[in-house]
Amino acid sequence: MKNFFQAKRVAVIGASKEEGKVGNVIFQNFLGLPFKGEVFAVNPNADEVMGYETYKNVRDISGKIDLAVIAVPAKFVIKTVEDCGKKKIRNIIIITAGFKEVGNTKLSNQLKKTLEKYKIKCIGPNCLGVYSSYGVDTLFLPKSRLKRPQPGTIAFVSQSGASGSAILDLAAEEGYGFSKFISYGNAITIDETDLIEYLGADKDTKVICMYVEGISDGKRFLEVCKKITKKKPIITIKGGISKKGSQATMSHTGSLAGQAEIYFGAFKQAGITIAKDLREMFDYMKVFEKIQTKPKQGRTQIITNGGGYGILSTDSLERYNVPMAEPSKSTISKLKKKLPPIAAVKNPTDILGDADTQRYTDAINAYLLDKNVDIIMATVLPQTPLIGKQSILDALEELHKKSKKPIITITTGSEYAIELRKQIEEKGIPCFEFPHNAARAIKKLIEKK
Amino acid sequence: MKNFFQAKRVAVIGASKEEGKVGNVIFQNFLGLPFKGEVFAVNPNADEVMGYETYKNVRDISGKIDLAVIAVPAKFVIKTVEDCGKKKIRNIIIITAGFKEVGNTKLSNQLKKTLEKYKIKCIGPNCLGVYSSYGVDTLFLPKSRLKRPQPGTIAFVSQSGASGSAILDLAAEEGYGFSKFISYGNAITIDETDLIEYLGADKDTKVICMYVEGISDGKRFLEVCKKITKKKPIITIKGGISKKGSQATMSHTGSLAGQAEIYFGAFKQAGITIAKDLREMFDYMKVFEKIQTKPKQGRTQIITNGGGYGILSTDSLERYNVPMAEPSKSTISKLKKKLPPIAAVKNPTDILGDADTQRYTDAINAYLLDKNVDIIMATVLPQTPLIGKQSILDALEELHKKSKKPIITITTGSEYAIELRKQIEEKGIPCFEFPHNAARAIKKLIEKK
Repeated sequence: MKNFFQAKRVAVIGASKEEGKVGNVIFQNFLGLPFKGEVFAVNPNADEVMGYETYKNVRDISGKIDLAVIAVPAKFVIKTVEDCGKKKIRNIIIITAGFKEVGNTKLSNQLKKTLEKYKIKCIGPNCLGVYSSYGVDTLFLPKSRLKRPQPGTIAFVSQSGASGSAILDLAAEEGYGFSKFISYGNAITIDETDLIEYLGADKDTKVICMYVEGISDGKRFLEVCKKITKKKPIITIKGGISKKGSQATMSHTGSLAGQAEIYFGAFKQAGITIAKDLREMFDYMKVFEKIQTKPKQGRTQIITNGGGYGILSTDSLERYNVPMAEPSKSTISKLKKKLPPIAAVKNPTDILGDADTQRYTDAINAYLLDKNVDIIMATVLPQTPLIGKQSILDALEELHKKSKKPIITITTGSEYAIELRKQIEEKGIPCFEFPHNAARAIKKLIEKK
Repeated sequence: MKNFFQAKRVAVIGASKEEGKVGNVIFQNFLGLPFKGEVFAVNPNADEVMGYETYKNVRDISGKIDLAVIAVPAKFVIKTVEDCGKKKIRNIIIITAGFKEVGNTKLSNQLKKTLEKYKIKCIGPNCLGVYSSYGVDTLFLPKSRLKRPQPGTIAFVSQSGASGSAILDLAAEEGYGFSKFISYGNAITIDETDLIEYLGADKDTKVICMYVEGISDGKRFLEVCKKITKKKPIITIKGGISKKGSQATMSHTGSLAGQAEIYFGAFKQAGITIAKDLREMFDYMKVFEKIQTKPKQGRTQIITNGGGYGILSTDSLERYNVPMAEPSKSTISKLKKKLPPIAAVKNPTDILGDADTQRYTDAINAYLLDKNVDIIMATVLPQTPLIGKQSILDALEELHKKSKKPIITITTGSEYAIELRKQIEEKGIPCFEFPHNAARAIKKLIEKK
């Protein structure tokens, strides 16, 4: 499987010189960093592609090829796979559509047989394929439309190509770091379970995310997940949980999605974190990416420079059944001496609208040291100029480094706040847009195995 | 009340030349557009502020003053209000803090008496005051931190200053249009109900939003809301609905917030739309701002270029109990002729990953004409270069203009998608980030009175 993500010598079959074409975008993806290996263009009808010599046939390339990416018309796919088989290529990504998903069962079966004959592992057909932080990138959508994420520890597996690409694009925008992204389409040989199993053992991946409609072998899938979730979280958003949604999956990926209750029950037993919508998935991704150690208990201390956000945070914790911390008397009395007399020093602690970095440092520090507190939930509203970006960042970083207790932050607003959120997260501290999202994520953090 | 929002001659008492000071930011706010009236700086200790002549006392200004903004230390407030009273100013915004909210009941009572003596209407003290699209802007936070929203039809009333400013800042970023924003602080004479009542009759305001912790006169509040919600929606997020949250409001605004069930029940009876968290409020704001006419029924037709989003849309509609449309046979057969043979023409309708503007036009048009469809829910994933921004915008605008049926759109992704979303909304069409948000908003649209 490793060759799908870390191939050193890649052949793009169907590499095209025509701008915007699938085979053109994919070939270009391999030309620059982060890919450091060699790429070969295969195209019987062109002498060169972007200044690179082309090969009429993949077999004409000398030396071993780790991975072939196939982007030729459906009718040529079988022949191309045959050539790959003879060239002893064992990993293939087939981008081409026009198989089972359009009712072409015959061609699909023929493809399957050919793949089996040569013992080829295949992702696809009818997919976007793979994006890996190592440099394999078969996403045929240009970077101006589909932003590539920074390297990181999240792996995302999507049955749906277009939806997967939209999710990846947004995740890149919001600063999530990815190890791998896989759109696996028709899953002709490699299915969701194979991928999850691989990612479970993958050292570069700490969080596995998944958009799935149907699961081909439910029993095996759950067994695999059960083992993995003991070590790393699997977050799943299940498409087709509603009655009508389940019917609709039939014409999307041809797989039958089952009833909500059955799925959710089984997922829960396997330790899978269920997200009911995409923002929920993003929120869980964030908290699991940043925080690997489970807090002792869930007793959460709120700190805020906006009284209303303190109230909303409190409401949100209760909504998600997260226990509020009850800080010790000595913490309270020590902190009271440091904060202005009118600050509300309890839970929530309101350090007031004119709070500066020093007040945040004092408050967070006090609660990090308190045995009765497991998690800090701190709102930083940066509309007041008293919040200095660099100073609050430095303070948060230092506090985060010296304590194992999770610090969960919240900030809301326009450019300045969005930038601050990204920078806080670069320090390894999760930062949410609203108290509700933070509270919901904290709940999952506590429930973590 | 009108003078709070449309004053022509404004006195800023405590106008300061010191950059960053409250009285400096506020005075500056009145110097440029959109404010077209006259502003006067009152400061006994300075000869000029930013090149403007200062007055030692508000009474020294000749002619009528419509509105005084007070930003002097608490101990000088009573005397300043006396001067305003003698100058026959009947509208005052007191920014200054240090009254009831810090336990200074005596000063607070004294202020109240002085205001009553001169029959002065007062917003504040301890507040950010007012932002109106007309040009009154007493928000003392600089525009680099707190973005001002574009003019529009939303009014937002917030008990909490810092939280209100964060919400306003984000709303400005996301392109919402505001008529008024009011942070009313201690509500010494004008309370939430007075404001809601005014906004209910305000022609520039079509949607009223509110963040509230405690309500001073519940009976009157509900009576006023009940009348208004027959004509325009009131969206409320209630802080302190949880047990602990309710306790926390005591030290924030000194008001006792009641039990969730009682509030929600009463709010519902008064026709108030309840949002449980801030994103929910933003979603409802969006759909109510853009769509004034209630759809006949709620039968919703899904169109998508990403199969997964079709499934997720279907799941979301069922989650929020929104009925799926069952398009007529003739619509289906006509549309089938226009779309590729492998497109799924039903509900959801998947116009496939290679959809262009023409396919959107064909599909949306077909369902707009179908008697069995009340609402269109269309996903446009722009990761594929086949989606041209200008062409899809033009098409959506034309379709939107020729039909009264709401078109609700969804798009997800990085810069390109974010830009597309803003531009779609400039055409008067709501656009959400995820199917879940769209479905939840559609539900409220159907429930609208």
